[in-house]
Amino acid sequence: MSQDQLYARRHEILTAARACFARFGYGGATVRRLEEATGMSRGAIFHHFRDKEHLFLAVAEDDAATMVETVARNGLVQVMRDLLDRAGNSEGDTAGWLGTQLEVSHRLRTDPAFAKRWAQRSAAIADATRERLQRQREAGVLREDVPVEVLTQFLELAYDGLVLHLATGRPAGELARVLDVVEGAVRKPAA
Amino acid sequence: MSQDQLYARRHEILTAARACFARFGYGGATVRRLEEATGMSRGAIFHHFRDKEHLFLAVAEDDAATMVETVARNGLVQVMRDLLDRAGNSEGDTAGWLGTQLEVSHRLRTDPAFAKRWAQRSAAIADATRERLQRQREAGVLREDVPVEVLTQFLELAYDGLVLHLATGRPAGELARVLDVVEGAVRKPAA
Repeated sequence: MSQDQLYARRHEILTAARACFARFGYGGATVRRLEEATGMSRGAIFHHFRDKEHLFLAVAEDDAATMVETVARNGLVQVMRDLLDRAGNSEGDTAGWLGTQLEVSHRLRTDPAFAKRWAQRSAAIADATRERLQRQREAGVLREDVPVEVLTQFLELAYDGLVLHLATGRPAGELARVLDVVEGAVRKPAA
Repeated sequence: MSQDQLYARRHEILTAARACFARFGYGGATVRRLEEATGMSRGAIFHHFRDKEHLFLAVAEDDAATMVETVARNGLVQVMRDLLDRAGNSEGDTAGWLGTQLEVSHRLRTDPAFAKRWAQRSAAIADATRERLQRQREAGVLREDVPVEVLTQFLELAYDGLVLHLATGRPAGELARVLDVVEGAVRKPAA
């Protein structure tokens, strides 16, 4: 296979595996179900990813890479708005996928190699958020009475809250307006 | 046993069970370990609580009742500050207990009877938060450009974010100052 074909195959597996993890959870996404979801044999799947844990981490890292791009361009609040929209449209079983991430971060928190890759993923998102806030501070649109680091962690707190809310299948309620409050809390007040 | 003795015994079991769930997780808190933690036989424990699931829910409801009292008196932000302090002091294995709550809310989310009791617990905390914010609005200390319902859900989002942060064993970082930002975001700006 060419590099492009390898990449395309890898991407196909990740997309199908993501849906399978979202639907069945980590434990429920058996190798048999991963074969059905991807339409590939276990041999083909594990040619690309060492084992189920590495496959799961690759899906999560793919997600995180997309998030980092959105954060750099439009900020973490926009990532939250997109997540809320997708959950409302039941798109890609957003709640299921978030729930599986929570399940796994709990289950594998005692595994140091996993914990390290998981932490790198979160750190990349935090870095992108911090850099964007720093640029906004320089542009004069950010409040100035609170350090950028505190505002970064404030946005992360809101993101974690949204993840937990959606992962536990609770209704969206007024969350769209809540995100307006979150966004307003980091901005400079209108003169 | 007198009513007082029954109540005291029940309270002892809840306290010991809470520590056991915090340390071993829901699955890991076997009946044998619950016996060791409480110093009582399974017969004695399950005389007070129907089964492990009911025991777990009773611990969680006991917690929620304490939270409702603190919310009514000092607000949900104070509950968050207390939680952060206790996690920092490793008091009562706060992170472990939050982690077990997340584990269980995920594991038992397909059980309608459990889901109902769990939702009632959250609703009691939300109601107390809403009532306190309403009193603050009447006292003129709350911002007036956002409905009380949206501010209630904003505080819940921050609470959920804190739970997820602490349950996954992440360091406190700047969370104390983040909670100042959360508190400031619901208040009327200083004139």
